[in-house]
Amino acid sequence: MISGTALRTDFGFLGFRCLEITRWVICGLIGFLTGLIACMIDIAVEKLAGYKYLAVKQNIEKYTELGGLSISLILWAVLNSAFVMLGSLAVAFLEPIAAGSGIPQIKCFLNGVKIPRVVRLKTLVIKVFGVICSVAGGLAVGKEGPMIHSGAVVAAGVSQGRSTSLKKDFKIFEYFRRDTEKRDFVSAGAAAGVSAAFGAPVGGVLFSLEEGASFWNQLLTWRIFFASMVSTFTLNFFLSIYHGKPGQLSSPGLINFGRFDSDVSSVFIVFRGVLGALFNIINYWLTIFRIRYIHRPCLQVMEAMLVAAVTATVSFAMIYFSNDCQPLGQDNTEEYPLQLFCADGEYNSMATAFFNTPERSVRSLFHNPPGTYNPVTLGVFTLAYFALAVWTYGLTVSAGVFIPSLLIGAAWGRLFGILLSFIASIWFCCVNLTGGIVRMTLSLTVILVEATGNVTYGFPIMLVLMTAKIVGDYFIEGRSRIPGLQSVPFLHWDAPPTSHWLTAREVMSSPVTCFNRVEKVGRIVDVLSNTSTNHNGFPVVSDTTENDEPGKICGLILRSQLIVLLKHKVFVERASSRLSQRRLQLKDFRDAYPRFPPIQSIHVSQDERECMMDLTEFMNPTPYTVPQETSLPRVFKLFRALGLRHLVVVDNENRVVGLVTRKDLARYHVGKDGLEELHLAQT
Amino acid sequence: MISGTALRTDFGFLGFRCLEITRWVICGLIGFLTGLIACMIDIAVEKLAGYKYLAVKQNIEKYTELGGLSISLILWAVLNSAFVMLGSLAVAFLEPIAAGSGIPQIKCFLNGVKIPRVVRLKTLVIKVFGVICSVAGGLAVGKEGPMIHSGAVVAAGVSQGRSTSLKKDFKIFEYFRRDTEKRDFVSAGAAAGVSAAFGAPVGGVLFSLEEGASFWNQLLTWRIFFASMVSTFTLNFFLSIYHGKPGQLSSPGLINFGRFDSDVSSVFIVFRGVLGALFNIINYWLTIFRIRYIHRPCLQVMEAMLVAAVTATVSFAMIYFSNDCQPLGQDNTEEYPLQLFCADGEYNSMATAFFNTPERSVRSLFHNPPGTYNPVTLGVFTLAYFALAVWTYGLTVSAGVFIPSLLIGAAWGRLFGILLSFIASIWFCCVNLTGGIVRMTLSLTVILVEATGNVTYGFPIMLVLMTAKIVGDYFIEGRSRIPGLQSVPFLHWDAPPTSHWLTAREVMSSPVTCFNRVEKVGRIVDVLSNTSTNHNGFPVVSDTTENDEPGKICGLILRSQLIVLLKHKVFVERASSRLSQRRLQLKDFRDAYPRFPPIQSIHVSQDERECMMDLTEFMNPTPYTVPQETSLPRVFKLFRALGLRHLVVVDNENRVVGLVTRKDLARYHVGKDGLEELHLAQT
Repeated sequence: MISGTALRTDFGFLGFRCLEITRWVICGLIGFLTGLIACMIDIAVEKLAGYKYLAVKQNIEKYTELGGLSISLILWAVLNSAFVMLGSLAVAFLEPIAAGSGIPQIKCFLNGVKIPRVVRLKTLVIKVFGVICSVAGGLAVGKEGPMIHSGAVVAAGVSQGRSTSLKKDFKIFEYFRRDTEKRDFVSAGAAAGVSAAFGAPVGGVLFSLEEGASFWNQLLTWRIFFASMVSTFTLNFFLSIYHGKPGQLSSPGLINFGRFDSDVSSVFIVFRGVLGALFNIINYWLTIFRIRYIHRPCLQVMEAMLVAAVTATVSFAMIYFSNDCQPLGQDNTEEYPLQLFCADGEYNSMATAFFNTPERSVRSLFHNPPGTYNPVTLGVFTLAYFALAVWTYGLTVSAGVFIPSLLIGAAWGRLFGILLSFIASIWFCCVNLTGGIVRMTLSLTVILVEATGNVTYGFPIMLVLMTAKIVGDYFIEGRSRIPGLQSVPFLHWDAPPTSHWLTAREVMSSPVTCFNRVEKVGRIVDVLSNTSTNHNGFPVVSDTTENDEPGKICGLILRSQLIVLLKHKVFVERASSRLSQRRLQLKDFRDAYPRFPPIQSIHVSQDERECMMDLTEFMNPTPYTVPQETSLPRVFKLFRALGLRHLVVVDNENRVVGLVTRKDLARYHVGKDGLEELHLAQT
Repeated sequence: MISGTALRTDFGFLGFRCLEITRWVICGLIGFLTGLIACMIDIAVEKLAGYKYLAVKQNIEKYTELGGLSISLILWAVLNSAFVMLGSLAVAFLEPIAAGSGIPQIKCFLNGVKIPRVVRLKTLVIKVFGVICSVAGGLAVGKEGPMIHSGAVVAAGVSQGRSTSLKKDFKIFEYFRRDTEKRDFVSAGAAAGVSAAFGAPVGGVLFSLEEGASFWNQLLTWRIFFASMVSTFTLNFFLSIYHGKPGQLSSPGLINFGRFDSDVSSVFIVFRGVLGALFNIINYWLTIFRIRYIHRPCLQVMEAMLVAAVTATVSFAMIYFSNDCQPLGQDNTEEYPLQLFCADGEYNSMATAFFNTPERSVRSLFHNPPGTYNPVTLGVFTLAYFALAVWTYGLTVSAGVFIPSLLIGAAWGRLFGILLSFIASIWFCCVNLTGGIVRMTLSLTVILVEATGNVTYGFPIMLVLMTAKIVGDYFIEGRSRIPGLQSVPFLHWDAPPTSHWLTAREVMSSPVTCFNRVEKVGRIVDVLSNTSTNHNGFPVVSDTTENDEPGKICGLILRSQLIVLLKHKVFVERASSRLSQRRLQLKDFRDAYPRFPPIQSIHVSQDERECMMDLTEFMNPTPYTVPQETSLPRVFKLFRALGLRHLVVVDNENRVVGLVTRKDLARYHVGKDGLEELHLAQT
């Protein structure tokens, strides 16, 4: 590989130091920008939702006495739909990849699976705009998923020192234009996103490690932590200025549950288990329905608008028909207390839950003193909100699922808290919906501990998440149900149990297309053009013998490298005429990254096809190899620990006999009857 | 390897589930026991120190008026010396490995370096007894290091299901009697120790990962976290019962700094930089002095007693000569307020710092309102305590260095806090001594954040630790100065920069002693007995040709496996007469673990020397190999990522040409003039 020889000799000891400092600077920048974006989202949502609720509240107050509340309903529904329409239009027509929370896509990216357009600038813009619209539009969604996605995009952009979309190259950070470095930075970006979304820097680090880093590297972790810290700090700093209290950095994170007292009486509840499984099942059918019938963008926008209007209607109906009046507190914790049909000095408690952004609802559920809500209100709220959340999840809008599930959990927990004693409810009801959908158990615990700011809850939260995970696993296999990701070669942490009797020989793809050290250009072009052998890496062998016996391995070369070589016509015959060619190599590879041209775009004339290409200098001379008898768990461990994409299988004469790729490994899953072999889509 | 074939076939899918559940149970047990031990240490120290200070206080009060304070001084010094003598005697004569904090030893263990007797039951008992004595004896030490060590020993013991020291085998957890599993559990134990010591479960997990786990495994991390959580919870639970407030789990950790307010006026300061470097340099010379002159146990005990007496004398003198009287607060935060020569209703503020366990002193420095101490008091205190801490560190007592360095840092910060404004002092003085000595930057940040319970300080703490690290690195290379650990093959996280031009060929040891598949017993015994080739792993080759040309690799066998095979005389000639032999294999290997008999203890008769042994079934048939041209960073990465101990280097015919061990890699360090090759002791 180029990076193996040509590159590293550029750097002395000082060069490595500089590189490390540059990495830190980039991480700081990533944290700063992510914090800024989080701040922007936060303020925009607050402003827009504020205007909306104020308008509706005034309207309701006006018509409560006059008796034309249906006009208020229509106003509310129209406002909601308008916001959602804007967001949904942008997502559906401009960048469909910006739909949803973005967390599954980022997980795949960190796992080593490339999904096109995930970390582009355009995706970022649409994502941010979309999430502001959906939250302000009153949908049952959160803004934390898009926040994480935004962090990742920022990282991917900043670390490359250029924007391909804007066609602007700042000529900096050129060293980082390669997969491994970029992935490291994207880890940092995702962590900064989590940190900004939940005010949980440590949780952010753990999220990145859990999902991404296969090889635990202390310096990398330390940088990720730095990015997280900067992000939280930036967000707090600017929010404190916005709120007019500069320097008082007391609002960590977009989700600020406030500080829990030690003798907390409100119950901290996260919800899951059976309900979580139900969520997944319903959503699975809904997704299939959507794929079949609602596949055109304009239909998708209309569905989103419909959901927005229905959300407003349901909310309105709930508020209208509830007669749960509560006395208005002195401290005015409610921002938009709706009197409606309540007596003077009282307010409708259903409105606290529905006439608010989901984040504020969670906060009031956690912190309002016992007796604020009656059980029937809470029960109806939970069910209605659950239905809305299920329907909303999977819409073509940019939105997260964490806050809604937390909200349902909080309401459910509060309900149990009323029925049982409080302590008991902490222990028994802390079951988690989010765990069921998002499946990031370890970091989730830390995030929740950090968000509540109280380590005392750590142990119960953990016990509950574990219980929830076991229950959830029993009902449904969560990850593989993520719509659209079934065919992705996502590698889990360990090889499936009982896979130890499989060896590399059985897993590998064979026969493998190999190249000779000095290969004919025509053959290379043919192999790369052949769509049936779309491998990304090709073993280079020393000398293929006359019969079909494979040659001894002496290197590995990547498709992208071959394409760059072809593009620059680095042929043996031309070496004498173009001596300056060699010096350009490294820069050429970097400039082409990450959007290498397809083979079809490279024109090779008939004469050139007869030329030869010497791959020796460009290949990776010491690729990882395993003998045929290696067991699957060992191969798996190599892939995960070293972040491999291809592994050459050799016989005991070092002859190439096969190639193991991520797809070959991802085929094996544990089903109900033991090990199963899945048939992944051949993309 | 046995574990490769014979073992795994024992388990079906259900077996793997059971195994996983067992691991969880063990981790829970580890957490519980570690928490219990922490609780015991805490209560014992509190009781003993309480009695001591009460006796001295009464004596001082009695003689303040009578005018014979020298008697009080003698009483104090004698009490201190007596406690320290007990602790030091136990350490010096019974188990010298229990001296110090134990953290370097645990780090080495987790890194894969075996240090004898580190995780034995006897070490645990002496350690716990020793740390109680040293803290109660008034030395400038903390109890957090021994706590972490205790956690690790508990883990190593519990996970094996037997105690070799007590000669008791519970016949459980037999599957876990192997290096990798044991190391995983020790990680969990260390994390539980950190968690109990600092009330920082997340910090504990990060400590373990930073120091130990080379391959980030989600399930393992999750288990480590579980152990940490259980440990904190157990400690809190029992301490709350002891303090008479069951259920109110508000005292997380041995070090409880209390909760910091948002508008904190006391400055949170950790100290380091130049002073940290000074600490290391002085201690380095002190260690050399000790190795030369104080090498006999009784001398070591006497030195420890001397330090204890001097500590009492210095403290007494400081209190005696200070005239810094402060009014007694209403809330009586001081437990032993000394009036001495102060007016009625006032107390001597120097006594808060010196007439107290270090932990309480830290707390009072953090929390007492501004104006409690005057600058001169603080300045003198800092210097005196620094000198004492330097002298104490390295004594033959069981003690940690975290609390003393935190105490010096806190005093220093408080001093700056008085001189400068408070906010500025947070930013500029947060320099950390601990970081300089302990070098666990990432987890330290998290531990401090968790201990203060306020994420707002995270960013400044982090910035400061980074600054401190850079300053410290400039002055001295911390790790390699840890006394007694110079010759340990400790692998850092990355290969040294600029080492990329080194290849496996240059790094490897060569020639390698290989065995044939079917080898003569005599040769095996000779090779194992030969002290010059004390490798732990031997490549097995297919057929050594007549001339000295090496054979093709077909496996790797460990010294311990060979010894067990020899002990059970698994010879080809005996296969027919002892058919039952084969079935005992796995159990035999496990039973011998971890104290394999030395080769000298195995008697092989002259007849038996002529027998043959078939290694095929016992060797690891697919060891990791690399070609000769592999660069050092790549070899290094394989070692760290996969936790290897030996790596076979082969030529392109798959013939063994060399063997890379940890020692070969640890030789290379970055010095002032680039890469340096160290000469490690050949142990």
